[in-house]
Amino acid sequence: MAKIAILGFGVVGSGAAEVLTHNLELIEKRIGQELTIKYILDLRDFPDSPFGHLVIHDFNTIVEDPEVSIVAEMMGGSHPAFEFSMACLKAGKSVVTSNKEVVANFGTELLKTAKQMGVRYLFEASVGGGIPVIRPIVNDLAANSIRSVSGILNGTTNYILTQMEASGADFVDALKDAQKKGYAEADPTADVEGIDAARKIVILAALAFGKLLDPNKIYAEGITKISRSDMKIARTLGYTVKLIAHSEKIDGKILAMVTPRLVPASNPLHSVSDVFNGVMLDTDMLGQAMFYGRGAGKLPTASAVVADIIDIAKSPEYDKSFPCLVTAEEDEIASLSEYSCPWLFVLDEKTDLPVTIKKSAVVDGKYAVITENILETEMQAFRATLGENLISAIRIFE
Amino acid sequence: MAKIAILGFGVVGSGAAEVLTHNLELIEKRIGQELTIKYILDLRDFPDSPFGHLVIHDFNTIVEDPEVSIVAEMMGGSHPAFEFSMACLKAGKSVVTSNKEVVANFGTELLKTAKQMGVRYLFEASVGGGIPVIRPIVNDLAANSIRSVSGILNGTTNYILTQMEASGADFVDALKDAQKKGYAEADPTADVEGIDAARKIVILAALAFGKLLDPNKIYAEGITKISRSDMKIARTLGYTVKLIAHSEKIDGKILAMVTPRLVPASNPLHSVSDVFNGVMLDTDMLGQAMFYGRGAGKLPTASAVVADIIDIAKSPEYDKSFPCLVTAEEDEIASLSEYSCPWLFVLDEKTDLPVTIKKSAVVDGKYAVITENILETEMQAFRATLGENLISAIRIFE
Repeated sequence: MAKIAILGFGVVGSGAAEVLTHNLELIEKRIGQELTIKYILDLRDFPDSPFGHLVIHDFNTIVEDPEVSIVAEMMGGSHPAFEFSMACLKAGKSVVTSNKEVVANFGTELLKTAKQMGVRYLFEASVGGGIPVIRPIVNDLAANSIRSVSGILNGTTNYILTQMEASGADFVDALKDAQKKGYAEADPTADVEGIDAARKIVILAALAFGKLLDPNKIYAEGITKISRSDMKIARTLGYTVKLIAHSEKIDGKILAMVTPRLVPASNPLHSVSDVFNGVMLDTDMLGQAMFYGRGAGKLPTASAVVADIIDIAKSPEYDKSFPCLVTAEEDEIASLSEYSCPWLFVLDEKTDLPVTIKKSAVVDGKYAVITENILETEMQAFRATLGENLISAIRIFE
Repeated sequence: MAKIAILGFGVVGSGAAEVLTHNLELIEKRIGQELTIKYILDLRDFPDSPFGHLVIHDFNTIVEDPEVSIVAEMMGGSHPAFEFSMACLKAGKSVVTSNKEVVANFGTELLKTAKQMGVRYLFEASVGGGIPVIRPIVNDLAANSIRSVSGILNGTTNYILTQMEASGADFVDALKDAQKKGYAEADPTADVEGIDAARKIVILAALAFGKLLDPNKIYAEGITKISRSDMKIARTLGYTVKLIAHSEKIDGKILAMVTPRLVPASNPLHSVSDVFNGVMLDTDMLGQAMFYGRGAGKLPTASAVVADIIDIAKSPEYDKSFPCLVTAEEDEIASLSEYSCPWLFVLDEKTDLPVTIKKSAVVDGKYAVITENILETEMQAFRATLGENLISAIRIFE
């Protein structure tokens, strides 16, 4: 018999209770033992919920109850989610979470404590919602050395970009529509400025390369500056605009970045639309692989939280082969200036460029070109040279 | 120290040796112990291979050597691969395989023996080549009840269809091109008639629904009858033709089938091109998810074989939660006649049809319509009514 506690009865927390109840028979058969939710911690009461009688307000009840062996943290935000998770691990309980903010900022300490206590800290739901991503990277690609990991990791911005492309709406109107439909929050900053995607890519990079970068220090650019004209030009040239989170190794150092990019139809991320997410890996033996599905939402995210609970119920002890997410040292982090990729330049008037052009088009009187690879340092020089003639410059993800 | 034996030093077998050697340091770090290839069984000698000194010709040497704890069967074909696998399991050795023919035909007995002996029988590489599919279904979707599993599971036919669409070639020429490039075998029957995909879909269906169907008895239709005209009409209407393997439950019974189908751009399988594979799942909590990557080839397939070896090196004991693949009884299998889906009808001349039409077009003088769902039993009546006026009828996969 495994007894679990849920921290936070919001969207994902109530979803986890629903998944655990709805598929209980199937889940208990898979783990070969009974599974019960003993407590749900929240500030509020839920008198009308079928789980209302499990709701408590004192965290200590959970941490002091030796019967509780697995704690599912779905509170969101860094504090007190981090402190509560830490206290549970120190009390010898395994912890699972959907909270990317906590994992990206404190994953190192939490995993270290889990190791010391011989318990587990799992966070499949923190990246890609319900899509299996973390366990496949750790287990299924174990025979591979990973070259890069990239993805569309934020459903809100992907919905906005899909709407902009489909309806020709501009960013502000598409954002309003997303807010109306519940796909964007009242304060959309973390999504539209790439902060959420930055947290997720540092988690993926840590699994791929073993070192955790500070999510607040990587280069993250959102989608607020993408114009209807950029969208139209991208389409004319055979591309679509996506917010791409990307990490790779450059000369042994780790680079992680979040930027809007033009994606060609030949790339599997091209067709990841609406609120869907896609995570793409490039490895030495398997080559390219992609995982696609619902990157957010109540039941999809809860599905991943419960998969972690099932994993722990089957194997409660610390897994020595799980990556440690050691905090990256300064000299292990690549600078963006060392990165190179092709670019789209939108120019006010046709200009000779000292770089190889792969494709060009005139759209609404503007001159658009797709270049070969350009180093970020070279881009600085370009911007200076082109001055006001350069209307837009967007990276390309091939 | 784990010592392994490789059965069959063909494409995948030599790939596995290469993966194990190339990434040995990383693999040993992940499993926390040394890993050595002790024997390679093959009928041939390989004097020029760096692994030549490991090659033996007597299977008994392996089965009788107590040092060998993991055997990787990559021989292909049913016999003696099945007998060798069985003998290894009975000798208390875990077995991994890339051999879908053996898993689809004898999976029930092999898993039963593994259970009796307390060892493991894993077959990640048997479906989707290197793409993580089986472990994600078993572990990551453990909180879900699976509604259907579908996919593009055969790289050869997908390459041929992609070529037909891109170049306007007919089937025979596209097949010749695939054979020239090494993507199709001299005798392409198992691929182009859907036999290979049938083996793979019964394996996926068994993981999803717990019962193994006979791969030789499910409805399997290949791509040999797809014409250039069908391709052109599909494109005009916004679809592409793919060989889709599909399994779902109808009234509690399991249906599995392989048929060429029209796939709309809104479906993630639409953009799975060339030799790539895609496996799509529809589940009650997560909704739709897709796994995409290289479904064949030396190193990708070997990557999955080695992932299984790593899994066993970490956890050598029989996993009680792994599905048993019990052979399905007759009354657990749904008949194709109970299945319904939309269809494309290509008619010689415009005709009134007693079914709702969703879309239609005239292409090269032919009248093409996309229908609403039609039961397979109704289709029999249609064919009789339409007679020679019906040029083509292809199922649609939405």
